[in-house]
Amino acid sequence: VPTIPASHRDLLDGPHVVSLATVGADGLPQVTAIWAMLDGDAVRTSLYRGRQKYRNLLANPNATLFAIDPTNQYRTLEVRGTADIADDPDLGFLQRLLSCYGTDLEGFHGPKDDRVVVTLDPARVVALG
Amino acid sequence: VPTIPASHRDLLDGPHVVSLATVGADGLPQVTAIWAMLDGDAVRTSLYRGRQKYRNLLANPNATLFAIDPTNQYRTLEVRGTADIADDPDLGFLQRLLSCYGTDLEGFHGPKDDRVVVTLDPARVVALG
Repeated sequence: VPTIPASHRDLLDGPHVVSLATVGADGLPQVTAIWAMLDGDAVRTSLYRGRQKYRNLLANPNATLFAIDPTNQYRTLEVRGTADIADDPDLGFLQRLLSCYGTDLEGFHGPKDDRVVVTLDPARVVALG
Repeated sequence: VPTIPASHRDLLDGPHVVSLATVGADGLPQVTAIWAMLDGDAVRTSLYRGRQKYRNLLANPNATLFAIDPTNQYRTLEVRGTADIADDPDLGFLQRLLSCYGTDLEGFHGPKDDRVVVTLDPARVVALG
């Protein structure tokens, strides 16, 4: 299994907004800005079941996370893989993710029901710069 | 045809690095950092034929450009569409693109042969923030 190189782990360890690409039923990639974190060596994010990207992943688990270093736009990390979806009934994972971004459930304005944990099983990792 | 709203044109008018998502033969999205520009209302970039993303687009023209405002990561522009590929034999387009990024053919270190102009025909535009 490809792993995230130590040189680029910071792009998923800090409070950076990253991009998630999924593929819609029409075949067009959907790309949105998300929060994500490294959980050990796993790349994880939290999604709300009401979102298009969640529906895309249910139908087609192929997904790619892409991070650009905000201080050096030529330093990037791409993780292509398949998404595993699990429930987050007590919001334990969401709380861990929020803490990486300096906030908590009270400070979080997104939906707090119907959250899932998405773990990207990496097939290919490309670290540049 | 959806157009880029005036509120978000700056994300493609300035020298910002943006992301391009294509879909590989294995079905996994590929996301890379690219330079792009607005040419009137058309979203255009320049690609080298040696790149994976060029081969992806030849086989599957579905592509999405995604820009995050570097000064406000919650302000984003997503343009989903299909890619039209044309030759750039005299590098006229490449030179225009480079000038948007403050450089020219002499200062450009990428391949200068086998360049194509990729124009994204927008099917859906999502401007947030």
